[in-house]
Amino acid sequence: MAFATYEERASVHASPVASKLLRIMASKKTNLCASLDVRTTAELLSLVDQVGPYICLLKTHVDILDDFSMEGTVKPLKELAAKYNFLIFEDRKFADIGNTVKLQYSSGVYKIVQWADITNAHGVTGSGIVKGLKEAAQENSDEPRGLLMLAELSSKGSLAHGEYTTGTVEIAKTDKQFVFGFIAQRGMGGRDEGFDWLIMTPGVGLDDKGDALGQQYRTVDDVVSTGSDIIIVGRGLFGKGRDPTAESRRYRDAGWDAYLKRCNA
Amino acid sequence: MAFATYEERASVHASPVASKLLRIMASKKTNLCASLDVRTTAELLSLVDQVGPYICLLKTHVDILDDFSMEGTVKPLKELAAKYNFLIFEDRKFADIGNTVKLQYSSGVYKIVQWADITNAHGVTGSGIVKGLKEAAQENSDEPRGLLMLAELSSKGSLAHGEYTTGTVEIAKTDKQFVFGFIAQRGMGGRDEGFDWLIMTPGVGLDDKGDALGQQYRTVDDVVSTGSDIIIVGRGLFGKGRDPTAESRRYRDAGWDAYLKRCNA
Ligand SMILES: O=c1cc(CO)n([C@@H]2O[C@H](COP(=O)(O)O)[C@@H](O)[C@H]2O)c(=O)[nH]1
Ligand SMILES: O=c1cc(CO)n([C@@H]2O[C@H](COP(=O)(O)O)[C@@H](O)[C@H]2O)c(=O)[nH]1
Repeated sequence: MAFATYEERASVHASPVASKLLRIMASKKTNLCASLDVRTTAELLSLVDQVGPYICLLKTHVDILDDFSMEGTVKPLKELAAKYNFLIFEDRKFADIGNTVKLQYSSGVYKIVQWADITNAHGVTGSGIVKGLKEAAQENSDEPRGLLMLAELSSKGSLAHGEYTTGTVEIAKTDKQFVFGFIAQRGMGGRDEGFDWLIMTPGVGLDDKGDALGQQYRTVDDVVSTGSDIIIVGRGLFGKGRDPTAESRRYRDAGWDAYLKRCNA
Repeated sequence: MAFATYEERASVHASPVASKLLRIMASKKTNLCASLDVRTTAELLSLVDQVGPYICLLKTHVDILDDFSMEGTVKPLKELAAKYNFLIFEDRKFADIGNTVKLQYSSGVYKIVQWADITNAHGVTGSGIVKGLKEAAQENSDEPRGLLMLAELSSKGSLAHGEYTTGTVEIAKTDKQFVFGFIAQRGMGGRDEGFDWLIMTPGVGLDDKGDALGQQYRTVDDVVSTGSDIIIVGRGLFGKGRDPTAESRRYRDAGWDAYLKRCNA
């Protein structure tokens, strides 16, 4: 069977967030997610303005911004998202019991549920985490919200493999509409059971092999050929001496070529 | 061999934070950690004022406080910690690659490394997480800082068992001075290899069996007899209709009795 196109998948996906994202990918011809881990809102907004045209998704860690505020950070981010047509993914990696993550997702300074289209969670605490996050989304947002589970990780010595990964996939299956995919290094199956999971893959770099704290990079071709739908690139775009506009165009092109190759395989 | 007392352990512990905590426990005669998951600073401070005399440790989730600020939240908390003689543990559950957690621990709105004596991390991403957090502590704090690894969880369907737990213990061993214990449901060994890990156990309740989102409670006697050094109690102290002063006295007494029983066993 030929690999389904992003358009085909968009039209039948169970998750409104996934449909929306797949449509953006098809129309902008990009499967690039930019991961911009910087410490000030000004730097973040300036980078987004440079990479905006080339991405389908912006991944944030708002908890590293020294000057975060709803008015000063979230509002301009949402305006840029509208201007350049991309979604926002707060990479929170929830990893607590259901009652706690429900509070963390909806309250506090960040109120992630109010502005992030997508967030993610580890499966380590069990399926209560999906239930808690889903309740927070239903009670606090009228916009569609979606969750990714972390099935595999990019870093050296990760414990997310074997039974742990299988266990996470089982947890994802408990909510077909809210959980629409995985952070993983390869496809996680599911088609035969009616799941069309989007696979997003970090640890992607064309020039480096890793960093000093355990990060490991694979090439764009490598991750897309093993089942990734969206490539997540951070320091490859904005690291020292790099031109974010040129690099995001380069990764966008590499990602799209690899996707076309997979569609025609 | 008789079980070592908190005093005995304090005097020889490799971690300055663990020594300090064990000394507080011995002098206040309490192994109770209060976990106060409320949404406003006023509620938090009022609860701390009630339970302060009976606890050795305060566990926070500052990311659920709608009105968090360094001046309005952290400053009065530190004053209460000095007044009642307890340490502060921010239950952040770091769970990302080393480069990211280093930024999350030291920067952002919360700057956890500046004020929390203790924080914790999942082992899922590998040992880079310990290295990243340790670097952040060394570069940003003159006060002693300590890390707990999450070896086991209290919630239903948790994936933290078997190989995952063993893997986490191996990661903990990579830094004897910074990592001084575990969040776990029982002892994690280590004595024969020269580790004196403090075991802190959440999911403790004398009146309830669990909640609607997967939390599971065990009794104080049960967890202390299977190797817990510190009991973490949340809604058991401040849940609806409960008197936090009376309940913290009750859990303090139950925890201390169970500890004495174990010392004399
Ligand atoms: O397994 C993972 C999962 C994630 C995302 O959930 N990440 C994140 O991707 C980004 C990779 O950045 P880099 O391309 O600069 O290494 C970081 O934000 C990191 O926290 C990883 O690096 N590895
Ligand atoms: O396995 C765990 C680990 C932790 C802490 O690291 N927790 C936390 O303990 C507290 C238990 O609260 P409770 O006594 O009200 O259930 C919550 O803050 C929850 O996030 C758990 O409940 N279970």
